[in-house]
Amino acid sequence: MKNLLAIGVIFLMGFIGFAQVNPVEDFKPSETNQPGREYPKVNSEGRVRASISAPEAQKVQLDIGGVQYEMTKNTNGFWVGESAPQDEGFHYYQLNVDGALVPDPGTKYYYGAGRWGSGIEIPASDSEKFELKDVPHGTVSEKLYFSNITQAWRRCFVYTPPDYGKADGTRYPVLYLQHGSFEDQTGWASQGKANLTLDNLIASKKAVPMIIVMDNGYAYRPEDVNKGGRPPSAFEEVLVNEVIPMIDEAYRTKSDRENRAIAGLSMGANQTMRILMNHLDKFAFYGGFSGTSNYPKSDKIDTKTFLNGAFDDGNAIDEKIKVFWLGLGTKEPDPFPESVGAFRQMLNDQDIQHVYYESDGTAHEWLTWRRSLYEYAQLLFKN
Amino acid sequence: MKNLLAIGVIFLMGFIGFAQVNPVEDFKPSETNQPGREYPKVNSEGRVRASISAPEAQKVQLDIGGVQYEMTKNTNGFWVGESAPQDEGFHYYQLNVDGALVPDPGTKYYYGAGRWGSGIEIPASDSEKFELKDVPHGTVSEKLYFSNITQAWRRCFVYTPPDYGKADGTRYPVLYLQHGSFEDQTGWASQGKANLTLDNLIASKKAVPMIIVMDNGYAYRPEDVNKGGRPPSAFEEVLVNEVIPMIDEAYRTKSDRENRAIAGLSMGANQTMRILMNHLDKFAFYGGFSGTSNYPKSDKIDTKTFLNGAFDDGNAIDEKIKVFWLGLGTKEPDPFPESVGAFRQMLNDQDIQHVYYESDGTAHEWLTWRRSLYEYAQLLFKN
Repeated sequence: MKNLLAIGVIFLMGFIGFAQVNPVEDFKPSETNQPGREYPKVNSEGRVRASISAPEAQKVQLDIGGVQYEMTKNTNGFWVGESAPQDEGFHYYQLNVDGALVPDPGTKYYYGAGRWGSGIEIPASDSEKFELKDVPHGTVSEKLYFSNITQAWRRCFVYTPPDYGKADGTRYPVLYLQHGSFEDQTGWASQGKANLTLDNLIASKKAVPMIIVMDNGYAYRPEDVNKGGRPPSAFEEVLVNEVIPMIDEAYRTKSDRENRAIAGLSMGANQTMRILMNHLDKFAFYGGFSGTSNYPKSDKIDTKTFLNGAFDDGNAIDEKIKVFWLGLGTKEPDPFPESVGAFRQMLNDQDIQHVYYESDGTAHEWLTWRRSLYEYAQLLFKN
Repeated sequence: MKNLLAIGVIFLMGFIGFAQVNPVEDFKPSETNQPGREYPKVNSEGRVRASISAPEAQKVQLDIGGVQYEMTKNTNGFWVGESAPQDEGFHYYQLNVDGALVPDPGTKYYYGAGRWGSGIEIPASDSEKFELKDVPHGTVSEKLYFSNITQAWRRCFVYTPPDYGKADGTRYPVLYLQHGSFEDQTGWASQGKANLTLDNLIASKKAVPMIIVMDNGYAYRPEDVNKGGRPPSAFEEVLVNEVIPMIDEAYRTKSDRENRAIAGLSMGANQTMRILMNHLDKFAFYGGFSGTSNYPKSDKIDTKTFLNGAFDDGNAIDEKIKVFWLGLGTKEPDPFPESVGAFRQMLNDQDIQHVYYESDGTAHEWLTWRRSLYEYAQLLFKN
């Protein structure tokens, strides 16, 4: 009995140790660290080990993936602690120092989750798709413009492909690419790695050279804001009436609908699908990454009423839209799978051809969207 | 006696209150805040009021300008505190939560002082020089390149003036503009506002349209790094042998020396002066903002030995360099005034014409350098 108990205790200790206490000791500084910083680190299991000097603090936690992990204080005043293994890809996180939720001073900062804050990269099995490689590189430019609709200065980022600078008169097709809720126009060319993805795809001739425009999906008329409450979005008007004409004026674009694509992630998928269906004369390609316009509903879609009947004539839509593309991570939470599933069912019922892609092992996060762009961009402007 | 004491106490309280306790209550959210954040705030005296929720913390400080200001806890767990009045312009700062030095979650983040961290803007009397105005705007592009010298990927930022996108064949002069120590290539087009400054100067025809290239002044050969210790800088070779040819290839530049300027701040002033004097065939304009190559010395300069005798033939230098420009803030600490003063004395002794500018009421900080660029850029490429 005594021996059995001992075995039980050893087994239990072993189990706890494996699950919570003894991470594999192959931690390396994260690629998203500030220059010269050793912490945070990531190990081969995808655990994050954070560290911060806080000699007078009583309690410090690593807050990642919605879970708070207790950190412990060393004799020199440094707190250290690890998370459970995280999904591969990019995650937002923060530290909690005696109740203050703060960025980790070790990392670079990214806009997402409604704030500029820490991000960390758990290296992905297919990270070579998005890596900085020895191939010709395009450039990402910040473009400032005054919106008459919002009566405010706005900015967008524009990716131009490697040969654009040659100024040989070549004109390029354009992809309008949108972020999700609580994110902004900085995301796609930073944690989204859209520029590096296209550099790699263009170098390997998997995608045709294209311009990508990344704008801010939040746009409101001042008179609507002044009314109080949640103002209606003016983004569709800003994009269609201000941004597209500006881009076609300022860049060497091909400006017919067969050379213009639109895509977005999450809220951006919802927005861009509405914009597409209201302006089929302007876009021939659609990409919805982790979202559709029936979100958050998962009921069967009534095509008579959905988006004012835009999908009711399936054959007409099927003919007009050259690539209708949907992507989703296999670990996305409710209601994304159900909502996108109901939308796909509608497409099937209406005989509208579409591509459906699943990102293996990723949730409602950037690796799902990087992979979606990687797949989607290969299908654009080839018909 | 009792009355005198009471008067004394009241006087003393009044004095402390005026100096430390009763700021003018006209605080407004800082223009460098994250979207939607109320704190930090700045008042008309230039005081910074910070606030952070840290219900379990024992001690929270606002750390700005080398001084720590105690913050106090409200009943709802928020800490609030103010600094003394700060110089107008941009300052780096941080919060101290129970010994943890962390960015303020209320601000945007900037690279400087060796880290990505909080910055705050005390509105300047002449801020219209650098403001986003309703004028044509150039674009800032991020350019990635592989350096054979450092055997690493590097990036620079390139400002192209408003009409550059017209691609009408117009070629432009180029200013190479460098950051200071513990800063990087992101500074000039962010807290430095170089792009907005040039947009405004070009719109008012005070400066000619030009390209500005902002690279990273830290560059080392891998074999030098591997030796240990402080490696010699390879920045001069990277700039001259790699960056300039790349820019002249990728952009519509005028590539003769009379259409190429170089300038830098602090460490960048020191670096660019050396580069200038080693490559007078490549540059005709120099700008040194808060720095010179004799830094940190303030001894009389021996032109026989200084920079290998580069300034010894004053007449030849005077003829070659079309604008030799030096700027300094009136509140700069030792040894900047003395060191730049010794350098100016040498220029005078050698009969080398130069422009000397003083930024009123600013120290070794970004408002000095914004104003320096504003003045300097007006003199470029006009001969």
